[in-house]
Amino acid sequence: AQSAGTAPTLAVIGGDGIGPEVTAEALKVLRATIGADAFSTREYSLGADHWKATGEVLDDDTLAEIATADAIVLGAVGTAPGSTEVPSGLLERGLLLKLRFSLDQGVNLRPSVWYPGTPTPLSEEVTGAGPIDFVVCREGTEGLYCGNGGVVRAGTPQEIATEVSLNTAFGVERVVRDAFTRAQARRGHLTLVHKHNVLVNAGSLWRRVVDEVGADFPDVEHDYMHVDAVTIALVREPQRFDVIVTDNLFGDIITDLAGAVTGGIGLAPSANINTSGKFPSMFEPVHGSAPDIAGTGKADPTAAISSMALLLDHLGRPADADRIRSAVGTDIASRLAGPMRTTSQIGDAIAALV
Amino acid sequence: AQSAGTAPTLAVIGGDGIGPEVTAEALKVLRATIGADAFSTREYSLGADHWKATGEVLDDDTLAEIATADAIVLGAVGTAPGSTEVPSGLLERGLLLKLRFSLDQGVNLRPSVWYPGTPTPLSEEVTGAGPIDFVVCREGTEGLYCGNGGVVRAGTPQEIATEVSLNTAFGVERVVRDAFTRAQARRGHLTLVHKHNVLVNAGSLWRRVVDEVGADFPDVEHDYMHVDAVTIALVREPQRFDVIVTDNLFGDIITDLAGAVTGGIGLAPSANINTSGKFPSMFEPVHGSAPDIAGTGKADPTAAISSMALLLDHLGRPADADRIRSAVGTDIASRLAGPMRTTSQIGDAIAALV
Ligand SMILES: CC(C)[C@H](C(=O)O)[C@@H](O)C(=O)O
Ligand SMILES: CC(C)[C@H](C(=O)O)[C@@H](O)C(=O)O
Repeated sequence: AQSAGTAPTLAVIGGDGIGPEVTAEALKVLRATIGADAFSTREYSLGADHWKATGEVLDDDTLAEIATADAIVLGAVGTAPGSTEVPSGLLERGLLLKLRFSLDQGVNLRPSVWYPGTPTPLSEEVTGAGPIDFVVCREGTEGLYCGNGGVVRAGTPQEIATEVSLNTAFGVERVVRDAFTRAQARRGHLTLVHKHNVLVNAGSLWRRVVDEVGADFPDVEHDYMHVDAVTIALVREPQRFDVIVTDNLFGDIITDLAGAVTGGIGLAPSANINTSGKFPSMFEPVHGSAPDIAGTGKADPTAAISSMALLLDHLGRPADADRIRSAVGTDIASRLAGPMRTTSQIGDAIAALV
Repeated sequence: AQSAGTAPTLAVIGGDGIGPEVTAEALKVLRATIGADAFSTREYSLGADHWKATGEVLDDDTLAEIATADAIVLGAVGTAPGSTEVPSGLLERGLLLKLRFSLDQGVNLRPSVWYPGTPTPLSEEVTGAGPIDFVVCREGTEGLYCGNGGVVRAGTPQEIATEVSLNTAFGVERVVRDAFTRAQARRGHLTLVHKHNVLVNAGSLWRRVVDEVGADFPDVEHDYMHVDAVTIALVREPQRFDVIVTDNLFGDIITDLAGAVTGGIGLAPSANINTSGKFPSMFEPVHGSAPDIAGTGKADPTAAISSMALLLDHLGRPADADRIRSAVGTDIASRLAGPMRTTSQIGDAIAALV
């Protein structure tokens, strides 16, 4: 945690694929916004290459060191989806999820804003119905992401594989309270997303907690929507959402869709927040490592840059955060007319605007 | 199972909300297509009202009787999502899922076709890129839908709720083989949808089975996509899909989105197929019971009607199935210009066209 008066230390993990490229631009914009002296960085080369070279994904000493930082800036982790170069999930679970879980980052915050004119797969009838501006508060340390489950008779016709979703009142309450607090500061509306008609155990817990915490926020209206129905609403009427609160897996799925409808996940930032302040929070784009375009200069660093606005919010510098948000908005508006730019050209342009 | 030469018996379960209304139109079209004497029906009044009156959702005798039918025609089941009139999931789990599970309906088939001109939330740039025509083969008897899991310390701040996803090589192989067979008869492409980087146990099983079964179908190409990425692809490039195979929950989520992008779930049919032929298969629209519009004549019966085409495919009458599909296509094209019609007007129009 940050000591008063000293410049915060950022642990920087570029990761795999386009991760390091977009992270470099994010730090460029951060320097342009608050000055190079306003923070210090410690770089960690973790990811596929580090694993291939050392056989380690994230050792305990490194994790302990990262845990002393004031915040973490992460690029992206993992190899191509179909690839077998690295065992399935090794990097995602051993690095990204290990950080989220060990550092108890219970709130995964994912704002979605559509800047008019930005390319979207939605029709003008849908986007023209009003501003699209919502946030998803995704639980970050529970659910199906716990790595709980197992396999018997692996590789045989009798194989059985299980995955267990763990949900605690503690973890659910934490993200639900955070979501209500945000809704109160926004448009006063919260939607719980689940599938309680099938997942009755977990669904009942989530509903109960939302009702109970909701009683502390009489000025926030709340409703409920099944996750399958949410995918429909996100493409037909994304304006209906203000704050969405949901579990880890549903949050994963709907935030990719939310990113797509609001201009592509090249624009979608995220924060993994440790609400107790005991461990650092982590800021990363929603997108993955996209190894297919790594090194080509085609990666859009905007999501990583917007994540720096969330970092500044978190560090108690909302005015600086707004400077990044408005520079990003201006840049996005200007790029509509202009030619394609490289990763670093976009970073330079936004850095010049803050 | 159907005895040779006799007209098949259909168990008809209208269910809740708009279920009975759309089912009536589906049967109207079925009669118009193959004649009223070509099948017989047995009606079952099951759903919210039956439960309120009797306290039973689906008793064993009724289930045993339904199990002797040649096929089941189902409307929709359940009350409004936020409602507390009926305990959460009681009808869905006690009726719809009980049928799918007891009758071992391992393949939940959900075709998505976009008829040009049909209202869609997607831009013309996306829909203009080529025909949208794919099917999802959703596993129907496993995964998180087993009702496996529990709660301790319910209602307290220490509550823990679990949900267990069960996946067997047997169940996965069954739907994967069905999906490859369909892909072979279509455009020769299959996509496995999962989240193997997080759900490593189940994900490894699904990948292994797809690779193994795929070896029996050398003329079918197969690839893999994470479920979160699929939500993006469905709105940006739905043309890339031919056959998708996936688990029960992922299938639930992505088929609602698929329905939305191809003109609304008012148009999306489905079949729950018992591949062994030991028990009847079940045909139902993808949409829910929509109690808010029940009785208003606003329900679109097209999905229920198109499900009759899947029924006729299953009963070995593909030419008759095609007559329904083409009548639906013609009707959809004509409705673009015309005035709004009621549920039964749409049924009448399609019945006149077959
Ligand atoms: C890489 C993967 C493990 C991760 C997740 O599923 O959380 C990613 O999709 C995300 O949304 O941050
Ligand atoms: C009603 C519900 C249980 C059901 C499901 O989740 O399977 C529905 O959403 C569907 O897709 O058929």
